Amino acid sequence: MQSCAARAARNLAAVRAKRPLIHNITNFVVMNFTANALLAMGASPVMAHAANEVEEMVALAGALVLNIGTLTEEWVESMIKAGRKAAACNIPVILDPVGSGATALRTRSACRIIAETRPAVVRGNASEVLSLADASSKTRGVDSAHAVGEATAAARSLALELGSTLAITGPEDLVTDGARVVRVANGHPLMGRVTGTGCAATVTIGAFLAVDPDPVSATATALAYFGLAGEVAARHAAAPGSFMIRMLDALYTITPEQLEKECRIEASDE
Amino acid sequence: MQSCAARAARNLAAVRAKRPLIHNITNFVVMNFTANALLAMGASPVMAHAANEVEEMVALAGALVLNIGTLTEEWVESMIKAGRKAAACNIPVILDPVGSGATALRTRSACRIIAETRPAVVRGNASEVLSLADASSKTRGVDSAHAVGEATAAARSLALELGSTLAITGPEDLVTDGARVVRVANGHPLMGRVTGTGCAATVTIGAFLAVDPDPVSATATALAYFGLAGEVAARHAAAPGSFMIRMLDALYTITPEQLEKECRIEASDE
Amino acid sequence: MQSCAARAARNLAAVRAKRPLIHNITNFVVMNFTANALLAMGASPVMAHAANEVEEMVALAGALVLNIGTLTEEWVESMIKAGRKAAACNIPVILDPVGSGATALRTRSACRIIAETRPAVVRGNASEVLSLADASSKTRGVDSAHAVGEATAAARSLALELGSTLAITGPEDLVTDGARVVRVANGHPLMGRVTGTGCAATVTIGAFLAVDPDPVSATATALAYFGLAGEVAARHAAAPGSFMIRMLDALYTITPEQLEKECRIEASDE
Repeated sequence: MQSCAARAARNLAAVRAKRPLIHNITNFVVMNFTANALLAMGASPVMAHAANEVEEMVALAGALVLNIGTLTEEWVESMIKAGRKAAACNIPVILDPVGSGATALRTRSACRIIAETRPAVVRGNASEVLSLADASSKTRGVDSAHAVGEATAAARSLALELGSTLAITGPEDLVTDGARVVRVANGHPLMGRVTGTGCAATVTIGAFLAVDPDPVSATATALAYFGLAGEVAARHAAAPGSFMIRMLDALYTITPEQLEKECRIEASDE
Repeated sequence: MQSCAARAARNLAAVRAKRPLIHNITNFVVMNFTANALLAMGASPVMAHAANEVEEMVALAGALVLNIGTLTEEWVESMIKAGRKAAACNIPVILDPVGSGATALRTRSACRIIAETRPAVVRGNASEVLSLADASSKTRGVDSAHAVGEATAAARSLALELGSTLAITGPEDLVTDGARVVRVANGHPLMGRVTGTGCAATVTIGAFLAVDPDPVSATATALAYFGLAGEVAARHAAAPGSFMIRMLDALYTITPEQLEKECRIEASDE
Repeated sequence: MQSCAARAARNLAAVRAKRPLIHNITNFVVMNFTANALLAMGASPVMAHAANEVEEMVALAGALVLNIGTLTEEWVESMIKAGRKAAACNIPVILDPVGSGATALRTRSACRIIAETRPAVVRGNASEVLSLADASSKTRGVDSAHAVGEATAAARSLALELGSTLAITGPEDLVTDGARVVRVANGHPLMGRVTGTGCAATVTIGAFLAVDPDPVSATATALAYFGLAGEVAARHAAAPGSFMIRMLDALYTITPEQLEKECRIEASDE
C-alpha cells in the first residue's frame, strides 16, 4: 500500500478528476456550508430528503451522507430508506450522529440508522461516539463533553462490533476499523468556533469514500485534508467569520502536492 | 425600446428605488444566500412556505420565486397555492426547477407547477430545461450535464408552448420567449463553485420582474447584472469562499452606470 | 447596581467563561448565521425542533430562543412545548416575532407563544411590536414599516401587561419592562443589508440572559455588544457580504474592556 501521504494526494486528485455526486440528507444549519465545502474541493453536492425521491437520487451518487443534526422521525425514515438503497447499490454510507447522547431521540435514531444501513463510516466527536457504545453516556448539546482519548476504546470495540470504520474528531482525530488505528494531527482550534466544521469533515469523508474503497484510508486522508484547510485558513484569518471563508478557499486551493507534504497522518497496528 | 444596456441600468435603479418585496418559497440550502443577495441589491426578501399564510404573503409581494431544490409534496402544494394567488393578483411568478431531470419527483413537480401557475419566467441549467421539454431527458444531481446550446431549441419551443420566458444559464446565458432570443455573456467560472448562484440568479430575475413588465428584458438585464457581480467579485477573489462574499459586495456596489457600461447583452430576432 | 457599561463588560466575560448552551427553534434562513454568531461570541448553540426532543434539549440549556421567521403550525407547537418546559425549569425564553403583522398566521402565532410561554424578553422591529399590541396593525414582509419611536408607547404598555421585557431594534434600540426605559445607540446601517442581523441580536440577548438574571440589563447590554460588532465590522468593510463576515469576527474579537468603553447605553426611569 502507498504511504498515507501519497494516498491523500491521490484521493484529492481523484475527487477533482471524477467530481463525485455526494447525496446529503443533513441538517438545516450546515446545508449551505457543506454544499460549498463539497463544491470547493471539486465534488458535486445534492441535498434531497423527500421519501419519494431519495432512492432515485442516491442511485446516482458516489456516496451518501446522513446527518441527524436537526432530525425528526420523518427525516430519519428518509435516511434509512436512502441508506438501504445505497447498501443495495454498493454505495458507501457515512453517518454523522450530531448530538447523539444529548437526547434520547438522537441516540436512538443514530443507533437505528447504524443498525439498518450499516454505514461504512461513522464520524462524531468523543461524546457522540461514547453515546453510541453506551446509550447511558450523556452529553450537552452538540459540542463534545469528552476528550478523544476517552472514546478510543469505545470506538475500537464499536468498529469491530459493527464492521464499520469509526472516526472521532477533536484536537487530534482518531480513525479505526477495530484492527487498524490511524491518528490525524491536522487541524486548528478556530474550527471549533465555526458551525458545521464537523459536518463538513463528514462530507469530505463522503467525497473521499467515493474514490477510495478502503474506509480507513478514505477517512484518514479526508480528515488530514480538511484539517489542513483549517491550518491554511488560520494563516490568513484570526477570527471565525474570515476563517470560515478562508477554509472554503483552502479546500479549493490546496493541491495534492501540498497535501502530500503537509498532511500529518500516523498509522499504527496497535 | 431602450437599448438593453440602458434598460439594465434603469431596472437596477428601479429595484433600489422601489425596494420590491420578493416572496420566496425555496430550498433550505440557499435561503440565506438568496436573501442576502436580494438585500445587497436593494430588494426586500421574505421566505414563507406555510400553506396557511402563503396567499396572504404573496399578495404583498412584487414577485414570487418558486424553487424546488429541496422539495417535498407538501412544499409543492404551498408553491402552487401561492402561484395561483400571484396569478390572480397579476404578480409575476418565476420558477427555478432545481434538479428537474434527476428524479421523477422533481421533473413531475416542475411540470405541475408550470401547468398550474403559468410562470412568467422559468430559469434553469441546460439539463433542467431539457427535462421540462422531454421528461425522458435525464441528468445527474443539480449540476448540468448538457451545454446551453443543446437546450436552445427546446427552450424556444417550450416558451412558445407555455407562453413563458425561458432562461438557460451557463457559460453564456440564453433568454427567449420563443420569438425573441437574447444572449448574456456576463459571468465567471467561479460561480459554478458556489452553491446557490443559479438560485441567486433566479431571485435577481424576480427583483427585476417586479420593476420591468417585459419578462425577456427583465430576465436578460437581471442575468447581466448578476453575471457582472461575478466578474467584479473575481477581480478581488480567486477562490470560492472569498468569491461568494465578494459577489454579495458587488451586488451592492455596482452602480446603474457601471452596469450600463459593462453589461454584455446581445439581442436578436432570429 | 453597576453602571450599564460595567454590566455589559461583565456579561460578555461571563458568556465567554460559562459558554451557555442556547437552544434555538428558529427559521431556516438564519440558522447558520445565528449559530455562528453564538459560537463567535463564546456561547454554544444547538438547533432542535422535533416535538419529541425539545423538552429534553431545553432542560440542558441556559436560554431558549424562539423565532417564527419560517413558521408552520407544527413548529409553533414545538416552540410552545419547549417554552413551557423552559418556564417549568426557570430557563429564560426570548421570542423573535419575525414578520408579525405581515400575515394573520404570524401575528396569531406570536401572540399565542407569548400567552403560553411568558417569555422574559420579546425582541422585534417597530412594526412587529406594534402588531403584538394591536392585531390590526399591518406591515409588509419582515422589514419594518414603522420607526422605533412610533412603537415606544406600545412597547411600554405591552411590557406591563405581559410582565415581559420588550426590545424594539432599529437605528436606535429601545428596551423596556414598562417601568425602566433603556436606549442603546450602538449599531450601523449596513446591518439592515444582511439577513438575520435582527435574529442574531435576539440570540445574543439569549446568551446574555443565560448569565444575567435582569432581563432589561441582559437585553440592553447584549444589544450594545451586538451593535458595537456592527460598528467594528464597518471599520473594515463597506459592503454587506464582507460586513457580515466581519461582524462574526468582531463578536469574537471585542473584549469586555472595549465593550465597556464603546457601548452607548442610556438608562432612564421616565
